[in-house]
Amino acid sequence: MYEEIIIMLQEKQFNKARNEVLNYNEADIAEIIEEAIEEVSIEKAIILFRMLPKDISSEVFSFLSSDTKLEIVDGITDKEIQYIVDELFFDDMIDLLEELPANVVKKILSRTEKEKRKLINQFLKYPVDSAGSLMTIEYADLKKEMTVKESIDYLKQHGISKETIYTCYIMDAGRRLEGIVPLRKLIINEDDTLLKDIMDTDVIFVNAYEDQEEIAKVFMKYDFIALPVVDKENRLVGIITIDDIVDVIEQENTEDFHRMAALMPSEKQYMDSSVLYLARQRIPWLLVLMFSSIVTGSIIGKFELMLSQVIALVTFLPMVMGTGGNAGAQSSTLVIRGMAVGDVKLTDILWVVWKEIRVSAVVGIVLSTFNFVRIYVVGNGSLGLAVTVSLSLFLVILAAKVIGGTLPIIAKKIGIDPAIMANPLIASLTDMISVTIYFILATYILGIG
Amino acid sequence: MYEEIIIMLQEKQFNKARNEVLNYNEADIAEIIEEAIEEVSIEKAIILFRMLPKDISSEVFSFLSSDTKLEIVDGITDKEIQYIVDELFFDDMIDLLEELPANVVKKILSRTEKEKRKLINQFLKYPVDSAGSLMTIEYADLKKEMTVKESIDYLKQHGISKETIYTCYIMDAGRRLEGIVPLRKLIINEDDTLLKDIMDTDVIFVNAYEDQEEIAKVFMKYDFIALPVVDKENRLVGIITIDDIVDVIEQENTEDFHRMAALMPSEKQYMDSSVLYLARQRIPWLLVLMFSSIVTGSIIGKFELMLSQVIALVTFLPMVMGTGGNAGAQSSTLVIRGMAVGDVKLTDILWVVWKEIRVSAVVGIVLSTFNFVRIYVVGNGSLGLAVTVSLSLFLVILAAKVIGGTLPIIAKKIGIDPAIMANPLIASLTDMISVTIYFILATYILGIG
Repeated sequence: MYEEIIIMLQEKQFNKARNEVLNYNEADIAEIIEEAIEEVSIEKAIILFRMLPKDISSEVFSFLSSDTKLEIVDGITDKEIQYIVDELFFDDMIDLLEELPANVVKKILSRTEKEKRKLINQFLKYPVDSAGSLMTIEYADLKKEMTVKESIDYLKQHGISKETIYTCYIMDAGRRLEGIVPLRKLIINEDDTLLKDIMDTDVIFVNAYEDQEEIAKVFMKYDFIALPVVDKENRLVGIITIDDIVDVIEQENTEDFHRMAALMPSEKQYMDSSVLYLARQRIPWLLVLMFSSIVTGSIIGKFELMLSQVIALVTFLPMVMGTGGNAGAQSSTLVIRGMAVGDVKLTDILWVVWKEIRVSAVVGIVLSTFNFVRIYVVGNGSLGLAVTVSLSLFLVILAAKVIGGTLPIIAKKIGIDPAIMANPLIASLTDMISVTIYFILATYILGIG
Repeated sequence: MYEEIIIMLQEKQFNKARNEVLNYNEADIAEIIEEAIEEVSIEKAIILFRMLPKDISSEVFSFLSSDTKLEIVDGITDKEIQYIVDELFFDDMIDLLEELPANVVKKILSRTEKEKRKLINQFLKYPVDSAGSLMTIEYADLKKEMTVKESIDYLKQHGISKETIYTCYIMDAGRRLEGIVPLRKLIINEDDTLLKDIMDTDVIFVNAYEDQEEIAKVFMKYDFIALPVVDKENRLVGIITIDDIVDVIEQENTEDFHRMAALMPSEKQYMDSSVLYLARQRIPWLLVLMFSSIVTGSIIGKFELMLSQVIALVTFLPMVMGTGGNAGAQSSTLVIRGMAVGDVKLTDILWVVWKEIRVSAVVGIVLSTFNFVRIYVVGNGSLGLAVTVSLSLFLVILAAKVIGGTLPIIAKKIGIDPAIMANPLIASLTDMISVTIYFILATYILGIG
């Protein structure tokens, strides 16, 4: 995309490249830097970064990937690091400090003024993925006795460094949250209106230790662009802005996608991960699932004698097992996703069982009929085989759908991430059930074993 | 959650219930209405809704589910519908009109003033899932010759009905977008500053026909809270706000989750779907995948003679097939998700192949060694069987990971949704490959067939 700039860097035309990148938005410049690291060299990318005007460089920095941030911190002077840290929004700074090596953090903190240092140390104590680690302290705080005019003047003086002033927070002397006023209201009301007359006192807030997934749900429910965060004593400690929540939503979704595909959770992106890292992410669950399929295999082993008599039974095995796995995956995905977006609740479990039973009946009849016709009518197979396969299929779909629909809810009830219960694990379970149903039915219907 | 209010409704204490719900946020009131429909009756829920003050009822309405919206429209007078339609934000109104039956829409439009009607008709023509169907026309438009003071006065007069005035758009006489000014800048600059001196002319915008998935990516990349939409002649036609994009992101994720679990796409939520609807969503792919496992079965059938000689081979079949399926699902999920968040690009295909080959080598060696030891050393199986199973496993993992990593990219290249290629489809493909590799190796190594 940015071939020209890449070529300029390759030819060491740094000034020309710098002037060219300045035509772009900061998020684009960050992309150019990432591309330069990949296609030219980290050294040249850093030179380009260092040539950016300081106010732009700190914003570009906040758009870079974690790995690139660390590499740039390695390649620039302490003074430059200090400048970036000072200029970053407070929440971006905390993110950076959480990732930097301890000695660099120590050096940065030693140069930060005492008040800010204290605050930073406090923020670094919040658990990752909590409201505390997402929030920023750059918000507009007003008093309810102020008029609209006074408020706007106050914002004119103090507002420039605030990450968002679109919602102003009104606190009492004890810093407890009393109300909010959207900036929109300041604009449309008369100068001498008192804030207490226009503020909204029915404020929705979260605790600093609240998990980010729950916070994302609050944002989605109320269509907020910012949300206040309070401590145990209900004092306002920060705000969370919607741009960070969009990232949280994508991150939580990625986690669910990965869990549902039997991958260990990972913060790293695929393209940034080493071969060994990717292998470590994949091996544990593959081993677990392998054990379960060994169990399935040993169940089949118990019916060896029967199998050797009716070897045709083996050819239908993948279909019965596969359909069971897919049917279970459909139900578990619908329920897991339903819980993630707040549609399905823990108390709905019996309702889900009943629904899945009825859906299974419809799905099972369609698929079983199809197979019966295929084996008995079209394929000239024996009636016994046709009945065995069709009836197994029906029962397997029923079992798979009930298990797929309920296991995720049970998991959540006992505090396990429902996504972990998902497709591969449920598929393993349905595999065992499938072969058991299949061979037991075969034993009775075909009269062998 | 809202037991008390539900009980009041059951006891027909409507006034008491109404006063109680007014303590809640509009999004909560919408939830109460939904709960009342479920647990009391639609009629009583509608009575409660009609008793809300009008300005609140229209906002509550925008938070209701599609089904409930339609039921309420059915249960209230035309005049009330008209009021809600008039009060809704423009984008919410378009959403509603898109869902209402044609005769109701016609009635509503006949009572709307001509100018607005023309606009509505134009909006209804944009494809669902396009920028045009997401955008609102309620934005603040200024001229670059205005001063800060004039702008704020203008907003004071016109801003109250705008969905967002946090970004102001500056247009020339031809309504072409010239620049943007965040409201923040209006606040912090002096009264007599001209907009043209503080506006940002490097504006990022999208076309009205752009797909919503791409728009979500723009929001995520640039951390925007609003984005201007232009027509083919680059005239500003609307803006898209972040709250709608959050919904788009969740909707697109749900679509991907469903596709990856072999479900037909659906706009309806699980709890709102009928049994037949759910069955229809599930049967098509189950049939497709059943066909593919019939093919797998017929491949096994070709090796019947060998199977009857070494029946133990069957017991390892679920493990080889299952591990292949899971290994493929891991790779495809990583790549599909990587493409969705913009990490993996179409041009990365060879890079992905090379990475997957190396990861497969590591994963394959670990799992194969484990199986070799289990079968030959611990299980006292024959050397031939141990080699057959281990070597098959290694090759199956390699094949599954390369296919899983590349098929989604190829799908995207030829314009198919990569998620469709996902787990169940790739699992079916790896099943066929698994049994083929397994039995061919068995033929050679065990010297039978």
